[in-house]
Amino acid sequence: MAAHVARRKEGLEVNMLVRDSFVCQSINENHHNCKYFPEHKLPENVIATTDAKAALLDADYCLHAVPVQFSSSFLEGIADYVDPGLPFISLSKGLELNTLRMMSQIIPIALKNPRQPFVALSGPSFALELMNNLPTAMVVASKDKKLANAVQQLLASSYLRINTSSDVTGVEIAGALKNVLAIAAGIVDGMNLGNNSMAALVSQGCSEIRWLATKMGAKPTTITGLSGTGDIMLTCFVNLSRNRTVGVRLGSGETLDDILTSMNQVAEGVATAGAVIALAQKYNVKLPVLTAVAKIIDNELTPTKAVLELMNLPQIEEV
Amino acid sequence: MAAHVARRKEGLEVNMLVRDSFVCQSINENHHNCKYFPEHKLPENVIATTDAKAALLDADYCLHAVPVQFSSSFLEGIADYVDPGLPFISLSKGLELNTLRMMSQIIPIALKNPRQPFVALSGPSFALELMNNLPTAMVVASKDKKLANAVQQLLASSYLRINTSSDVTGVEIAGALKNVLAIAAGIVDGMNLGNNSMAALVSQGCSEIRWLATKMGAKPTTITGLSGTGDIMLTCFVNLSRNRTVGVRLGSGETLDDILTSMNQVAEGVATAGAVIALAQKYNVKLPVLTAVAKIIDNELTPTKAVLELMNLPQIEEV
Repeated sequence: MAAHVARRKEGLEVNMLVRDSFVCQSINENHHNCKYFPEHKLPENVIATTDAKAALLDADYCLHAVPVQFSSSFLEGIADYVDPGLPFISLSKGLELNTLRMMSQIIPIALKNPRQPFVALSGPSFALELMNNLPTAMVVASKDKKLANAVQQLLASSYLRINTSSDVTGVEIAGALKNVLAIAAGIVDGMNLGNNSMAALVSQGCSEIRWLATKMGAKPTTITGLSGTGDIMLTCFVNLSRNRTVGVRLGSGETLDDILTSMNQVAEGVATAGAVIALAQKYNVKLPVLTAVAKIIDNELTPTKAVLELMNLPQIEEV
Repeated sequence: MAAHVARRKEGLEVNMLVRDSFVCQSINENHHNCKYFPEHKLPENVIATTDAKAALLDADYCLHAVPVQFSSSFLEGIADYVDPGLPFISLSKGLELNTLRMMSQIIPIALKNPRQPFVALSGPSFALELMNNLPTAMVVASKDKKLANAVQQLLASSYLRINTSSDVTGVEIAGALKNVLAIAAGIVDGMNLGNNSMAALVSQGCSEIRWLATKMGAKPTTITGLSGTGDIMLTCFVNLSRNRTVGVRLGSGETLDDILTSMNQVAEGVATAGAVIALAQKYNVKLPVLTAVAKIIDNELTPTKAVLELMNLPQIEEV
């Protein structure tokens, strides 16, 4: 996203806060992110720093891409440098374990500022394809309509369409739960159950996310739109995601511990799955597929038994 | 479906009406459908015939799988042998060119019996995977709830889940228009636009089908369910469909004439696309993606120009 914004406006200075000083140097000296995009030249107006204070000084917007489970502690550490009027555009998707909070709640609490301007950015968007200027469409959601429009203007380009929405809850909950559904899709793949099963699973999963989200106050059309069904299809049917990989390996019989220790990136869906059962109880809604994933991850159910149970649910009238 | 029903109940005699006497002989003598399933042994209680009168004599149900565009003339030819109480379970998906009729209208008109019992069977179901007993889920829709339940009993098994629905219009229109969307998905693939584009296209297409279908009286949850989004995902993201193949070749620059003359199977979406513009006008609804496919097929728009136009539509608020 930094590269995208920088490419849109040559005069703009885009500061990128990174942890790794080697990556920082690689961006500033060679204009390459040696870790994630070694093949792509970054625009020269992307400037990396490891100093949060410097990155945040005089910023107009902050694009927040720290994984959900680490966001609270990270934000508490930089809160002193954050202007109370600085809009946060969140790219992070998931629910914080234990608190069940989403980014729209995590950010104001961690920054101790209930009025910190907030926008959720979501939708089917592999970063690599955006880097390659392939046509992409996303959604920005904010309670503040003016801010949503401003972020739309900041990001929209000839290869990135940006819809606006006021349904922050819908965009956030779909983004969080699609990672759990991606694990389920991976399991179906790892068990070689075929495409019919995959389509049935994903469509049932979309319905479950819609049932829960609407009980939480989301609009159903958000869940059936770009940031819901659109992003879910991408994550479930295409092989690139970390969450899906976890599922494929679970479906092939590996244990979660072995899988997680061998991965060097965060699979947000594993943490979010832990929140599913609590959410289903809190909002009194049945989520057979999402709950099964949570139980498989908790080692309470094997993938084979889960499939049997799901296929043997009573044959019903569609709702 | 004949093999599936026959496998479920060994005592049952399943008559299969075929045109090709060579296929007929292959089924009856070797229990193989040498044309479509050469590798699969058919149950011995599947009995092929080329004689419609014999096939229909004393039948309890008729599974109708003749392509939509040929159904009227076919049914008119066998009308004399059809009991007026015989339930038709339709597997055919599409809209009849010129009349814009779906199977629930074509069957009673062709048989000159407005009360011919009718059930639409739909959902994400590649036949090959059903033949291999891989878990599959489908929907049966009928205005007659008792009949829908009876067909559910006839078809449901440990590897085939069957939901019932009263929303015949929703199930039929989704089944018809997904074939047009599949051509669009193929075009995106043929143009190498990437997965972000594909997900954006398919989610926009699902919304367009829902907008039109609800104006025609369908329930929105039918379109977001198994026979809508579920089937659309399968058709658009997985490579096996004929409609998608047509799209891939259009996207790669071939002409429709060349593509159609080289195919030996029917791509129902090409005919259905012709009906899209008329439907959009009749029900006064904007369908940018589906209309673009119709125009590409009519040679009024190139795929490249269609993508440019779609990406340059005004950036909007989500609806």
